[in-house]
Amino acid sequence: MKISGRNKLQATVKEVIKGAVMAKVVMDYKGDELVAAITVDSVEDLDLKVGDKVTALVKATEMMVLK
Amino acid sequence: MKISGRNKLQATVKEVIKGAVMAKVVMDYKGDELVAAITVDSVEDLDLKVGDKVTALVKATEMMVLK
Amino acid sequence: MKISGRNKLQATVKEVIKGAVMAKVVMDYKGDELVAAITVDSVEDLDLKVGDKVTALVKATEMMVLK
Amino acid sequence: MKISGRNKLQATVKEVIKGAVMAKVVMDYKGDELVAAITVDSVEDLDLKVGDKVTALVKATEMMVLK
Amino acid sequence: MKISGRNKLQATVKEVIKGAVMAKVVMDYKGDELVAAITVDSVEDLDLKVGDKVTALVKATEMMVLK
Amino acid sequence: MKISGRNKLQATVKEVIKGAVMAKVVMDYKGDELVAAITVDSVEDLDLKVGDKVTALVKATEMMVLK
Repeated sequence: MKISGRNKLQATVKEVIKGAVMAKVVMDYKGDELVAAITVDSVEDLDLKVGDKVTALVKATEMMVLK
Repeated sequence: MKISGRNKLQATVKEVIKGAVMAKVVMDYKGDELVAAITVDSVEDLDLKVGDKVTALVKATEMMVLK
Repeated sequence: MKISGRNKLQATVKEVIKGAVMAKVVMDYKGDELVAAITVDSVEDLDLKVGDKVTALVKATEMMVLK
Repeated sequence: MKISGRNKLQATVKEVIKGAVMAKVVMDYKGDELVAAITVDSVEDLDLKVGDKVTALVKATEMMVLK
Repeated sequence: MKISGRNKLQATVKEVIKGAVMAKVVMDYKGDELVAAITVDSVEDLDLKVGDKVTALVKATEMMVLK
Repeated sequence: MKISGRNKLQATVKEVIKGAVMAKVVMDYKGDELVAAITVDSVEDLDLKVGDKVTALVKATEMMVLK
């Protein structure tokens, strides 16, 4: 299966914090920190936990550029 | 100035393709390719060109996780 | 592989229109029309064409509700 | 009034879960499940409750395609 | 009809530029310029033209804050 | 530093509500109300509080138009 989303970043889960609806997933990506805010349902569906090898996915239209 | 967006990746512009309204900006981040779809106006406002040192910015709510 | 994005709709491609940077992908989902604006690169990477069975994916944070 | 957002899905609310800031709205859409993460303020403003007939709205630029 | 999207700004269309797939809609809001990138289909569906009174709509999860 | 995001709205913080993961930031923008849902981490990183002069940032691809 291929995904249209252009940005696929191989990362490792460092921290998972769950709220009532949303969860924060902190990842390490080549020494930089990534943070995704996804639903708690997704965290449970993927059984996300510290140390997991994951892919952070971002659509090209969601990425800004600063210079 | 600080930005609420959590994901800030230092990258180098590799390619800029302009359409009538949208432009594609391809960047290199530590050997990975990042792709942002931004307006042509933004490309011109930032004077984006190959070799530029930039920061790719993504809000935490726009990032998915695959496992 | 599992994806955190909560909304996954099985659809069939009805039309693909390519611009210079962005492409429009029109899909049929049980008689309703879905429209995705993705990069031309993605269309080519997935080799999207009329009749393809695909999945439309939307993150929960990107969906509004009207009543 | 017309809305530029291309994807308008007629659905029925199945569940509403409120957190401190964000709420999860689960809907039935032709037998498939939709999940929207919206603010608690929006849930209260629309008085969303189980059984409500609603429209899930998604901008074309927010929809990915998997194949 | 009510919309969950929290940010609704009454604006006036100043310019509409159409590409093959995407269009740029520039609006005036109390002297500030707003820019929306929507599909050409939406521009035609809403028959958007200079001088139109419109509402710019943004979901709370799509807004960043700088300080 | 310049940002590709086209919509930069000078606003004043009126209210900050923190949940476990997400926070709501209500702002005044020329007499209208803006609401941003950002992470609690961002609120703390920017030290956001009532009365702060801030800029609300929205990418053009995230803005819809109603007519």
